[in-house]
Amino acid sequence: MKKQNRDLTAANQEVFEETKIEGRNPVLEAFRSGRTVDKLFVLDGCQDGPVKTITREARKQDTMIQYVTKERLDQMSETYMHQGVIAICAAFKYAEVDDILENAEKKGEPPFIFLLDGITDPHNLGAIIRTANLAGAHGVIIPKNRAVGLTATVARTSAGAINYTPVAKVTNLGKTIDMLKEKGLWFVCADMDGELMYRLNLKGAIGLVIGSEGEGVSRLIREKCDFTASIPMKGDIDSLNASVAAGVLAYEIVRQRMC
Amino acid sequence: MKKQNRDLTAANQEVFEETKIEGRNPVLEAFRSGRTVDKLFVLDGCQDGPVKTITREARKQDTMIQYVTKERLDQMSETYMHQGVIAICAAFKYAEVDDILENAEKKGEPPFIFLLDGITDPHNLGAIIRTANLAGAHGVIIPKNRAVGLTATVARTSAGAINYTPVAKVTNLGKTIDMLKEKGLWFVCADMDGELMYRLNLKGAIGLVIGSEGEGVSRLIREKCDFTASIPMKGDIDSLNASVAAGVLAYEIVRQRMC
Repeated sequence: MKKQNRDLTAANQEVFEETKIEGRNPVLEAFRSGRTVDKLFVLDGCQDGPVKTITREARKQDTMIQYVTKERLDQMSETYMHQGVIAICAAFKYAEVDDILENAEKKGEPPFIFLLDGITDPHNLGAIIRTANLAGAHGVIIPKNRAVGLTATVARTSAGAINYTPVAKVTNLGKTIDMLKEKGLWFVCADMDGELMYRLNLKGAIGLVIGSEGEGVSRLIREKCDFTASIPMKGDIDSLNASVAAGVLAYEIVRQRMC
Repeated sequence: MKKQNRDLTAANQEVFEETKIEGRNPVLEAFRSGRTVDKLFVLDGCQDGPVKTITREARKQDTMIQYVTKERLDQMSETYMHQGVIAICAAFKYAEVDDILENAEKKGEPPFIFLLDGITDPHNLGAIIRTANLAGAHGVIIPKNRAVGLTATVARTSAGAINYTPVAKVTNLGKTIDMLKEKGLWFVCADMDGELMYRLNLKGAIGLVIGSEGEGVSRLIREKCDFTASIPMKGDIDSLNASVAAGVLAYEIVRQRMC
């Protein structure tokens, strides 16, 4: 595992190496030391005391638990000593949504936040954090489930942006949107059926919602958005790459804020 | 290997690069999906049902069959799971620059062409071809040297766009630019030191030049460009991902053409 040196001043983040932690004691240690565990894999049917203690800790921290076969665990294992549990830990520490709002306040700008509804490809997540940084967004919010977290690949693909742009992980993206609406944010999501993005007013405090690679923005989240923006599509295929779509929309917001 | 449906009518392209397909099911899939298999290598003496089915498909398509030793197959294999058969396929076909101009003419539009000065990451190339398709560009031009070609990864990442948007490969990008200038195209390249893209007139027949991931647009090519456009950068890091930058610039062209 490579140690990564980072300049951490800006985003208030602490370095962690991305790790697979295997075996009962090591996994329990990880939870108890307060480490962010992105996902816990448990041998299906395994119900003894130590495993129950681990899953209880996982639930306390809202960690996603997935029950898998012994074959799957063996395949994932690097040590071959998993004892029925493997935890996937974050390479980076997450920020809080409040840190993102403070970031905007400190800069004296109306908040501009990316919300990613289920991005699963680490290259896309990294490229989007990179875009968020350069488009002047104040932070990125990702959901806990069915999405990639801050892995080493994401850190690398972000080209260092992960050190500056705070990334928060939330249990319920819909509730976070409701909370941010109370703070005065408007929400726009990308969808083919939306209004042409050039015709929308995207100035002011805004949350830009980007859907997952396969499915786009989920119905529940789309219904919470104030606007649906579409990118003009003149070609033969269905959709842009998620990180390209995020870039095109983010820069329409940048353009409108500049004009 | 995933089944790929192709419609080559639009791009009218010519065969170039090769991919190796290994294993019985993948090879049979390749034949059945109508892929051009240049050559089939079969383990000498191997005569069981599945292998017979494969050689029958090969004969139907006039594919050259060569019977070789296990050592030879092992040596050729990249997956070490060849199961006695390896097929050599053309990954994709290149168009000519003239095909791209004809494509524009057929649509009655001023040419809009992407020129990629040394993109080496297949995911970026695929995403850029995808963007070119959806932004309504008439084709993509890539250089022969120091750049990735149309590999299987590029095809997959392009989400099918490779079937519609012609991609031409040229020996000398500079000479191609000179030739296209004579046909009335203007060239714009992306560079941080350029004029803010919103202030440039990007309507009309245009070539959009995107630089490589590490180096940007090379000096020689930049000097040939009529404009240098910059994307506003408000963050802490250096540059956008190449495919995101291509998307943002391409959609500024789309916006100006629509307004």
